[in-house]
Amino acid sequence: MEPEPVLSRDARTGEIRARIGAEADARAVDAAVRAADATRDALADRPRRAALLRAAAETVEARADALIAAADAETALGVPRLAGELARVAYQFRFFAGIAEDGGYLGVVIDPPDPAAVPPRPELRRWKVPIGTVAVFAASNFPFAFSVPGGDTASALAAGCPVVVKAHPDHPETSEFAAAAIRDAAVQAGLPADVLTLVHGRQAGVDLVRHPLISAVGFTGSIPGGRALFDLAAARQVPIPFYGELGSLNPVLITERTAASRGAETAAGLVASYTLGQGQFCTKPGLVLVPAGPAGDALVSAAAEAAAAAAPGALLDARMREHFLAGFAARAALPGVRTLVEAAAAPTVDIPQAVRAGLLEVDAEALGPDSGGSDANGASTGELLEECFGPVTVLVRYRDMASVESVLGRLGGNLTATLHAEPDEPDAARWVARLARFAGRVIFGGWPTGVAVAPAMTHGGPYPATTTPTTSVGGTAIDRWLRPVTFQTVPTELLQPELAKPG
Amino acid sequence: MEPEPVLSRDARTGEIRARIGAEADARAVDAAVRAADATRDALADRPRRAALLRAAAETVEARADALIAAADAETALGVPRLAGELARVAYQFRFFAGIAEDGGYLGVVIDPPDPAAVPPRPELRRWKVPIGTVAVFAASNFPFAFSVPGGDTASALAAGCPVVVKAHPDHPETSEFAAAAIRDAAVQAGLPADVLTLVHGRQAGVDLVRHPLISAVGFTGSIPGGRALFDLAAARQVPIPFYGELGSLNPVLITERTAASRGAETAAGLVASYTLGQGQFCTKPGLVLVPAGPAGDALVSAAAEAAAAAAPGALLDARMREHFLAGFAARAALPGVRTLVEAAAAPTVDIPQAVRAGLLEVDAEALGPDSGGSDANGASTGELLEECFGPVTVLVRYRDMASVESVLGRLGGNLTATLHAEPDEPDAARWVARLARFAGRVIFGGWPTGVAVAPAMTHGGPYPATTTPTTSVGGTAIDRWLRPVTFQTVPTELLQPELAKPG
Repeated sequence: MEPEPVLSRDARTGEIRARIGAEADARAVDAAVRAADATRDALADRPRRAALLRAAAETVEARADALIAAADAETALGVPRLAGELARVAYQFRFFAGIAEDGGYLGVVIDPPDPAAVPPRPELRRWKVPIGTVAVFAASNFPFAFSVPGGDTASALAAGCPVVVKAHPDHPETSEFAAAAIRDAAVQAGLPADVLTLVHGRQAGVDLVRHPLISAVGFTGSIPGGRALFDLAAARQVPIPFYGELGSLNPVLITERTAASRGAETAAGLVASYTLGQGQFCTKPGLVLVPAGPAGDALVSAAAEAAAAAAPGALLDARMREHFLAGFAARAALPGVRTLVEAAAAPTVDIPQAVRAGLLEVDAEALGPDSGGSDANGASTGELLEECFGPVTVLVRYRDMASVESVLGRLGGNLTATLHAEPDEPDAARWVARLARFAGRVIFGGWPTGVAVAPAMTHGGPYPATTTPTTSVGGTAIDRWLRPVTFQTVPTELLQPELAKPG
Repeated sequence: MEPEPVLSRDARTGEIRARIGAEADARAVDAAVRAADATRDALADRPRRAALLRAAAETVEARADALIAAADAETALGVPRLAGELARVAYQFRFFAGIAEDGGYLGVVIDPPDPAAVPPRPELRRWKVPIGTVAVFAASNFPFAFSVPGGDTASALAAGCPVVVKAHPDHPETSEFAAAAIRDAAVQAGLPADVLTLVHGRQAGVDLVRHPLISAVGFTGSIPGGRALFDLAAARQVPIPFYGELGSLNPVLITERTAASRGAETAAGLVASYTLGQGQFCTKPGLVLVPAGPAGDALVSAAAEAAAAAAPGALLDARMREHFLAGFAARAALPGVRTLVEAAAAPTVDIPQAVRAGLLEVDAEALGPDSGGSDANGASTGELLEECFGPVTVLVRYRDMASVESVLGRLGGNLTATLHAEPDEPDAARWVARLARFAGRVIFGGWPTGVAVAPAMTHGGPYPATTTPTTSVGGTAIDRWLRPVTFQTVPTELLQPELAKPG
């Protein structure tokens, strides 16, 4: 059977712009995995890994024009955003180079012998070692930062794990360019190019997760796709960790006092955040609790005005465009839901695939636990509590904090939760703690879009935000690709220098 | 339907000694989970948790006589061993009290704002919070240290997670006594007794793993039982981490030089280790690579002599006894396998259920990868590479290091791997590194049985040793019950004191 061709499409027009090789069959996947796995010993050299990451930062910077041009055509995200995203990627490579060099992530613990312990303690020296060769599934919405040259790749290479990337079909040419940049950087650093290999194709992804030489998976994408791969990883004869980032509603709570004192500014910030990148961020605020009453009304009016004025743009692909428009329409048709701004196709000559942002409003009571989210006809308002990818958010008007609690109590896990309150409000600390119960990052007075690459970042949360209690961004993202090993009474001359310190 | 009674049996005679309540039906499991979950807020008080753990150490010490008497009757492990195990448990409670007090496990990271970062970094404050209410499955072979008052319970309570224990059917009375000791300790520390609840019954375990309020599972037991529960945890609508310790062969490599210089001592140490606790340790050395030739022959003879002289004893229950005797017979019947000491029933008046230890020998060639572990008739020598619970080990005679490599290459993940070599042997460092590739703890010149409770301990390894890259013993065992949360630009007066330090 002829392998399926891999096609690059223009996201603005939907037209095919290039053919990028072919999908990988089982044999090609096996070859990609074995080639990567054969570089494990070479990657064990920590200073050289750091050199690879620094060289990768330089190669992506040197090739920025070609990378950004390909990504702009394939994703319609625009040159300014993509230039920023690529700068982030270069920063991130250097960030993880520093983490690899520092070595703190190795978690070295050395216990001298202790005959008084129960049972008596022999000398123990513990650190973490690379888990093995890992598979990384690229996301649609960040062709750089959560794709081939993204955080999963950078953190896995920093940990010493070879990477096999499953390219996202929305940007195959960008993926090839980025893979070449990293492979060339490896050679510059004196490592084999195969520290990173690339495959295309849906079945290739399945074969990758099932491959016996794959020891862990990083994934950023949708709940259905991620869950299917999670299930495959768990069903293997040897199950492997599946670090998936699947979906998040990213609720925002605006208090009465903030609505009254900073309503216009808050409305502007909200619309900028939920329409950023055409609403295609995993941290897009998708549910906003706004007080009932005049201050909330003013905030809602300002938000509607800003949303109506937001520039239309193309989504990442035709399927997402359809899902977005259908998802908006389905939510708008639910009982009690008011359409403030209608999301719709907004084609122009340059961007035939463009859509414009939408805005919905509903009273908290319509979502209350008493109704179970369903009316007498079985229509489910629960859809309002599910992520809708694209530029739309739902304003939920609440009368009191009990009403807020009943909405929050219906939410699953989230990447983020945001509080807009005044620091001296008596309940502010309680609400911060309440939001932390279901989210991995709690933002005060800001917006969830924009995830800093920083030692203290958490980009993860209770399921379905992520499938494990880990982060895919920030310094501790490296922890996902490691396993602990302890050496007991092993003479230090037989150990790596990091472990050979006096106990 | 009448709930099934829970029966306590005498392990030495196999006779019923007491009825201990009834198995928990779905309603009882739900009640146990809800009661425990309701204590989450109370357990958020870290100093109080430490007080609970210290009080638990005291209550188990104060009730040692009753606990040990029940455990000795139910497990036949003997008073000296059980007294030591209980002392270990008390030590472990105090160890985790110290970890809770210290707070280093919280992983606090504070990033000041950095406008030069890409993207610019807001102030971030990260730590770890309790994951929620957890289920702990007790093991058969450690009625204290890996059961109700064991490491999973101590580390989960230290993390701030309420615990629902599924008792092991081999020691229900011991479990009830231990649960009462911890519950009483909670009350002494000013906490609700329900920080720990207890259920009995196989179906209760299934219901527990499926319960929506259970956020993670700790398990120590067999591969089939653990895998079934792992699969349930992964198949939940909201999957949860399943920290299972399932099985391990714990290979030992003895070099030619060590066999020649310390053969008799090594043989004695090996037999003491594999017959300890009637071979019912998860770290029992189950496969020992011994050189061919005269030095190896002498070591084997010495081991056979010591094994034949080992005192018979009862296994934990009748099913294990049958499995052990059948497992020994099946391995002894494999082509190329030589029985050095035959495992057999060895009943006495006091211990009708007693068995005596066995010892097997096989040439490495019989296990080589070329044969695929099967002879022409399909008989599989691969069984020799699987754990056999009870007092038996397999001596594998090797001619050269290539032969050793071909055996190691056929092994799955292991909790431990042990090297008996001379520190100045040219390949010693290489063998240490090789063993670390498939094991969580590498022991040099010692024996794997005996797992120290220490900051640097790793008790875990690639599957099937454990289902996740974590440890169930030692300071970092607490990490399993936590998830990270980051606070972004949250005023410090709204945060816990641990996070309110200057950035």
